[in-house]
Amino acid sequence: MPNKHIVYHIPVCPFSQRLEILLALRGQEDAVDFRVVDITKPRDPELLAKTRGTTALPVLETAEGTILKESLVILRYLDEVVKGPSLRRSDPVEHAIESMLIAQEGPFTMAGYLFVMNRDPDQRDSHLEKFLGLYRTMNDFLMAHSPEGPFLFESFGLAEAVFTPMFKRFWFLEYYEDFALPDGPEYARVRQWKAACMAHDATDQVSKEEIVKLYYDYALGAGNGALVEGRQVSSFAFNPPWQARPWPPKDKYTTSASDAELGLLP
Amino acid sequence: MPNKHIVYHIPVCPFSQRLEILLALRGQEDAVDFRVVDITKPRDPELLAKTRGTTALPVLETAEGTILKESLVILRYLDEVVKGPSLRRSDPVEHAIESMLIAQEGPFTMAGYLFVMNRDPDQRDSHLEKFLGLYRTMNDFLMAHSPEGPFLFESFGLAEAVFTPMFKRFWFLEYYEDFALPDGPEYARVRQWKAACMAHDATDQVSKEEIVKLYYDYALGAGNGALVEGRQVSSFAFNPPWQARPWPPKDKYTTSASDAELGLLP
Repeated sequence: MPNKHIVYHIPVCPFSQRLEILLALRGQEDAVDFRVVDITKPRDPELLAKTRGTTALPVLETAEGTILKESLVILRYLDEVVKGPSLRRSDPVEHAIESMLIAQEGPFTMAGYLFVMNRDPDQRDSHLEKFLGLYRTMNDFLMAHSPEGPFLFESFGLAEAVFTPMFKRFWFLEYYEDFALPDGPEYARVRQWKAACMAHDATDQVSKEEIVKLYYDYALGAGNGALVEGRQVSSFAFNPPWQARPWPPKDKYTTSASDAELGLLP
Repeated sequence: MPNKHIVYHIPVCPFSQRLEILLALRGQEDAVDFRVVDITKPRDPELLAKTRGTTALPVLETAEGTILKESLVILRYLDEVVKGPSLRRSDPVEHAIESMLIAQEGPFTMAGYLFVMNRDPDQRDSHLEKFLGLYRTMNDFLMAHSPEGPFLFESFGLAEAVFTPMFKRFWFLEYYEDFALPDGPEYARVRQWKAACMAHDATDQVSKEEIVKLYYDYALGAGNGALVEGRQVSSFAFNPPWQARPWPPKDKYTTSASDAELGLLP
């Protein structure tokens, strides 16, 4: 690559973490220039012009100025152009198998975000059951195509790069919803997979503490940098840094902490 | 390929037509053994076991017995293994560009099906506006990446194979909703693209008459072989053949034709 690719992303975005995982696996962390966008502020007009009005992140700008959108499109693109062995399986059938698993990620991600953002205690059980159903579908898929594990194939690959940031994101469900995968054979294989994904060296970009603190506003139903009623500062604000803030209250249904209680005032 | 791939599909399924288009472009129509599944009857238990309980079609069974699901996964798989030049662009940036356009197909397909299945006259305008908005997004994309046209790149490619079956499917909106793309610059480029896609020799697998007759039940809100109230025979029934039946009534909001009126009785 003559010049570096630029990736515009929000801090700790899971869709961007996939790209960081790919680069870490290749030892090519410097191949992309990551630029952080503050979603709590109006979007820079120059970037907005480049993305032709859409605000979804991450986007990648090639050295030639082409803008690529969609996390999976960017991931597959970097997999083709960054130096080192491909993440995707070279065998067409094996690649189709990993692509089928990847196709389960959209509904899984949607269900996890809707679950954490739910504000109605009466809807909690239906969110939980939906989310667990998707885990059972993954378990079934892994049992059919890779019963021994831990990964879908011999090593951490494309499907793992896609799912691991979501498994880590959903730490917010452990914290705010006391979510845990139930024991039992319906979840045994996906539990093994998830654990192997999360423990992999190349996936250390985020911590549970950071996720839980930054996503407090999501747990109150406010996504994408929107402000919770009565608050002046988003939990995604860059300052004060998350390390300096206390852990938020776990109870998302009856409590709404103030900026001061969240350590968000300078 | 030592043995043929088998594709199980429903008659004139758009997700399966993509595969037929790919084979037609390669002159390899015989590389896949297509087996029609009658969705108006209970699913064959042997096929249900192979698909591990899911009923979505098409599925592909490789010569080695691996089952591949998801239309786009199967399309990309066949693109890699069937003899002849790839449909996908070999250049990684160009492939990312066609993949971004392909990512617009899911919402487009969903909007078109919800539009034809809508039974509430008061909701008609919002379905129309949503559908048109997706066309404007495609128009914008094509203007950014391929202002001259007619195709996204020099010739009919992967994105065209994905969208063309949907453009043809949505003949049912022309018939049952009097849908037509408005004049004007917001739609000019996508109109050109759509026309070039639909006119291509490799996409002749279906006719407007067939689509309109088979999808009558969808226009009454009944999908996937479900029976419309008061009817005994699905508009997707194999017999009597669609060629022998009259055109259904265009008015989907106040009329519900009988089996006899639809020519569905033997």
